[in-house]
Amino acid sequence: MNSFGRLLRIEIFGESHGPAVGVMVDGCPAGIEITPEDFAADLGRRKGGRPGTTARVETDEPRLLSGVRGGRATGAPMLILFDNADVRSEDYKAMETLARPGHADFTAHRKFGGFADDRGGGHFSGRLTAGIVAAGVVAKKIIRPVSIGSAILSCGGSTDIEKTVAAAAADRDSVGGVVECTVRGLPVGLGEPFFDSFESTLSHLVFSIPGIKGIEIGDGFRGTAARGSEFNDVLVDASGRTRTNHAGGINGGLTNGNDLVFRVAVRPTPTIGREQETIDLETGRPAVLAAGGRHDVCFALRLPVILEAAAALVVADFQLIARSYRQNGGLK
Amino acid sequence: MNSFGRLLRIEIFGESHGPAVGVMVDGCPAGIEITPEDFAADLGRRKGGRPGTTARVETDEPRLLSGVRGGRATGAPMLILFDNADVRSEDYKAMETLARPGHADFTAHRKFGGFADDRGGGHFSGRLTAGIVAAGVVAKKIIRPVSIGSAILSCGGSTDIEKTVAAAAADRDSVGGVVECTVRGLPVGLGEPFFDSFESTLSHLVFSIPGIKGIEIGDGFRGTAARGSEFNDVLVDASGRTRTNHAGGINGGLTNGNDLVFRVAVRPTPTIGREQETIDLETGRPAVLAAGGRHDVCFALRLPVILEAAAALVVADFQLIARSYRQNGGLK
Amino acid sequence: MNSFGRLLRIEIFGESHGPAVGVMVDGCPAGIEITPEDFAADLGRRKGGRPGTTARVETDEPRLLSGVRGGRATGAPMLILFDNADVRSEDYKAMETLARPGHADFTAHRKFGGFADDRGGGHFSGRLTAGIVAAGVVAKKIIRPVSIGSAILSCGGSTDIEKTVAAAAADRDSVGGVVECTVRGLPVGLGEPFFDSFESTLSHLVFSIPGIKGIEIGDGFRGTAARGSEFNDVLVDASGRTRTNHAGGINGGLTNGNDLVFRVAVRPTPTIGREQETIDLETGRPAVLAAGGRHDVCFALRLPVILEAAAALVVADFQLIARSYRQNGGLK
Amino acid sequence: MNSFGRLLRIEIFGESHGPAVGVMVDGCPAGIEITPEDFAADLGRRKGGRPGTTARVETDEPRLLSGVRGGRATGAPMLILFDNADVRSEDYKAMETLARPGHADFTAHRKFGGFADDRGGGHFSGRLTAGIVAAGVVAKKIIRPVSIGSAILSCGGSTDIEKTVAAAAADRDSVGGVVECTVRGLPVGLGEPFFDSFESTLSHLVFSIPGIKGIEIGDGFRGTAARGSEFNDVLVDASGRTRTNHAGGINGGLTNGNDLVFRVAVRPTPTIGREQETIDLETGRPAVLAAGGRHDVCFALRLPVILEAAAALVVADFQLIARSYRQNGGLK
Repeated sequence: MNSFGRLLRIEIFGESHGPAVGVMVDGCPAGIEITPEDFAADLGRRKGGRPGTTARVETDEPRLLSGVRGGRATGAPMLILFDNADVRSEDYKAMETLARPGHADFTAHRKFGGFADDRGGGHFSGRLTAGIVAAGVVAKKIIRPVSIGSAILSCGGSTDIEKTVAAAAADRDSVGGVVECTVRGLPVGLGEPFFDSFESTLSHLVFSIPGIKGIEIGDGFRGTAARGSEFNDVLVDASGRTRTNHAGGINGGLTNGNDLVFRVAVRPTPTIGREQETIDLETGRPAVLAAGGRHDVCFALRLPVILEAAAALVVADFQLIARSYRQNGGLK
Repeated sequence: MNSFGRLLRIEIFGESHGPAVGVMVDGCPAGIEITPEDFAADLGRRKGGRPGTTARVETDEPRLLSGVRGGRATGAPMLILFDNADVRSEDYKAMETLARPGHADFTAHRKFGGFADDRGGGHFSGRLTAGIVAAGVVAKKIIRPVSIGSAILSCGGSTDIEKTVAAAAADRDSVGGVVECTVRGLPVGLGEPFFDSFESTLSHLVFSIPGIKGIEIGDGFRGTAARGSEFNDVLVDASGRTRTNHAGGINGGLTNGNDLVFRVAVRPTPTIGREQETIDLETGRPAVLAAGGRHDVCFALRLPVILEAAAALVVADFQLIARSYRQNGGLK
Repeated sequence: MNSFGRLLRIEIFGESHGPAVGVMVDGCPAGIEITPEDFAADLGRRKGGRPGTTARVETDEPRLLSGVRGGRATGAPMLILFDNADVRSEDYKAMETLARPGHADFTAHRKFGGFADDRGGGHFSGRLTAGIVAAGVVAKKIIRPVSIGSAILSCGGSTDIEKTVAAAAADRDSVGGVVECTVRGLPVGLGEPFFDSFESTLSHLVFSIPGIKGIEIGDGFRGTAARGSEFNDVLVDASGRTRTNHAGGINGGLTNGNDLVFRVAVRPTPTIGREQETIDLETGRPAVLAAGGRHDVCFALRLPVILEAAAALVVADFQLIARSYRQNGGLK
Repeated sequence: MNSFGRLLRIEIFGESHGPAVGVMVDGCPAGIEITPEDFAADLGRRKGGRPGTTARVETDEPRLLSGVRGGRATGAPMLILFDNADVRSEDYKAMETLARPGHADFTAHRKFGGFADDRGGGHFSGRLTAGIVAAGVVAKKIIRPVSIGSAILSCGGSTDIEKTVAAAAADRDSVGGVVECTVRGLPVGLGEPFFDSFESTLSHLVFSIPGIKGIEIGDGFRGTAARGSEFNDVLVDASGRTRTNHAGGINGGLTNGNDLVFRVAVRPTPTIGREQETIDLETGRPAVLAAGGRHDVCFALRLPVILEAAAALVVADFQLIARSYRQNGGLK
């Protein structure tokens, strides 16, 4: 299904060059304050227009079409819609039937029997992440005072991010990156043993973001080289606080009360200006493609706020669920 | 919820030192051949008793209590049960109230208000993976002729796995590892754009396996250092075959018809014989723990067949779903 | 959750006096033909403005904001939106804090802590059924050649429906009714034994329609007076055709290939012009209410097309699921 | 799927003449007291062996195989198993390939391609309701102090139930009945507007019980003859108490704090000793069947405790969900 979450449930919709994109948020507790202005900061962080990001810039003004009245969530499903304005389908016209290597063009074409809307990536476009960010704004309000931060650790294998991006741009090429996200103030015990462990649910949402090829919690892959006596985080008191945080805040699929730390691998943007070999989707014949359109040199630059949204959505859903676990049946 | 899957749905149950563990498999197509003997090979691969794995050895004879008749699936829910026999709760007695560092002891204790069955790890024990492997046996029959293989790439950061494990065992310590899994023969288009992408769903199940701290698809983290022109896999014909496979078989959340390749990071087994500092769960006071009980020096050694089961379950579920996508409504 | 369905999934949103209402349809097979004109007939049947129905008349022009391109479903989520135009919140102003007896005013107020949008019934308004009807239009295309019909059997306990409605209107009162729906051309075997039996799933959706207080399949309550030898429908051939249809097309939770027949009880519209005792939601004090606003004398008059939509959605979902049951695993 | 519930989730399994039947209960709050003795009373009420019910009598001793330790729920999935002992498949041998009219024999045979276990009704047998009753025992503990009662209103259209059943038994025939269930002590606001209204969810579970052909809430079908001014229940104070209860405790899909009252129609037991025409499932030819085996003359006699279980499960799930609605995000 194209939806996510159990008690706080989201569904994103829209196409890159269709009339609108957006998100339906279902299960937001009534009474939470929500105004259109609340979305500006995070949507601004997601936006293109800076060096290394796409030249396409949408105003990204959210229209709250349901579920909000007088600046507060009503408890009914909340539809948040963004009109598409800055659309230039003609840029993609020349390559319309050419499958961009590394992109969803080929797989979507085949999955949907040729009926997928493929203009500008269609439903598979990075533009869809506007809906995730908008839902994240709502989730961040729900999880307060839990806080979330993120940082780009590297681009194209280098920590000199600016220089790496500029070099790739000059070559009409693209680069990937590694982004880290940290969640502070989590309670102990969010998550389920099987199969909705905290990291199961988190990775589920994170891998829905276009271009993600890996995720690791705490020491992750690096930690496989350690001995158990080194890796184990020693509990220092009954609150669950540990001396180190190799586990990244999770034991047995459950949050342990320490900072949740995870990193993701973002692949280089598949759409590049350089010539690439490919095939024509209609004829099946070899072709050469030099992509027009506007796209990110490094999509990882836009990822921090999207990752934060994903983390906030997962935390919010688990917090809502956690309230039901309280011992002693009956509605108190 | 403690269940997984949409059309092929599993739920595992049981505790390490309770009467039984097992799995409920719901949605297996009627007519698939299933006999108790079918499970022997995969359960044998999962079993302990070899160097580096736990000394606890269960007979692991599956009892098919429902959903199977005359050697074939009936279409009703299938309950597969394994009696626990080789239980030595007394080994854990001394440390009963001491939280093993790195283990779920503390988080489970807190999540379930002190009522969790904590003997031998309880519901969080690696013993529960017997149910995943058993469900995987069923799934592998459903997905034929798709085939799955796996290999341990490293242990404790070294490719000399045998030596690394022996050294850790000698020190009453443990090590982690990296395991790779490859799925061959997949059709194009399994997965959903948002939010049930193929890798979302796969990572969801994989992170339910105890001790997993990372997953990457194709080039994963290494691929973030590449340029787009290097990373993009060039399509060579209309079947979707690509010249390289940096994407690991997935584009836009959908399988692309090439081999699916993913790797996971397995942390060092938390339970070790060496003395470790910790706290007493009841008093909250500092304590020193030298773990008794039987446990794996390197849990990664048992992981290949479990990972294969996870991959088979995800593929089977998506294949069942994919049949519904065929264009032209109506039951044909 | 405010969503319904497994493979064909819908979620309705909006408020009676908010900017819009509509429905998200997820899982529509790609390639199905969908144009705005397709919705006119069914939306017209649902509309008010006729004797016995509300004077509020919306143009009900569907805006297809995603998931459709060039007149065909793309396979991505389909957002169908209806702008609200004919809104007169002021009619409800006088009674704003008075709970209409029999309506959701009191329960919604309490459930959502006073934050529910209560203008004109808010999210609980019959206006929301426009989304169900629109989704039903899509579902009817999917299930072809299965066909659905419906009829009003009685109003206010009488078969002279016109007269009964006129009399109630003259008294500024309202009446209920019984509506029957028949589905023809169903295959054998739609539904699951536990817990998604065909009638479980059908009644789930039907009871979401405002004002429904009962549902019965085949002979229903009347059939409890029969002997088994009378009630049992005799199979006449291997197709499953039966001589009689007391079971209404279902045995053991599964369709049996005969006509599916069910009836629903629609309560009298709660909002009436006559004076009624009630309480003030804010002060908790007794009050007297003579409802303004525009409302149906007999909501049952608008029900046939809504019931058909519900039946079509259930059939479509089960048909999509049924394709996955085919014996012999593997994607054929 | 063969499972039910969102936070309290159940799945029943087994076949009438297989090794066992039972239920998996997932999501029971940790700490609830559960002992095998707790099940005796309700299982006893469900049992056959009395006039009008089947002669098959199982000991029905529940085996708690997981999720319970020391007499309390641990928070992990709870597997409750009943061994089948009193099985006489030979009684069904003669009619093995003859489809019992009115039963699931034909539909199950066709749905599962001939692989369904059809001995004694297989997975479609009333025996499966033991699992529902067992899960209901757990749910009743969770919902305390909410209480549930039920009564048989009529059998075969008569209130002289004993005489009606005896007459049908003498004719080797069967009768149906109407059963009413009442839930007292519910809070206001359980349920969701669309599509998980309280009665949607309740009817979903109720229609999974074999033989149910109708359900009505409050005045139900009778209420369609009333005027709105008669049907509307007048609120008498701010607690939500109403002067009458025509709505049966529900407005707008939400509980309103008054008694929840619903009735179900139970069809006559399809399996009867009298000769009936039918077809042979293998040859497709007409045949005559005089059913052996042991069966209920009036299944409605066993229904009260099953209905109560269904109501308890729905209430428990909604209560767990309701805790998450509390305004003000964050885990308090």
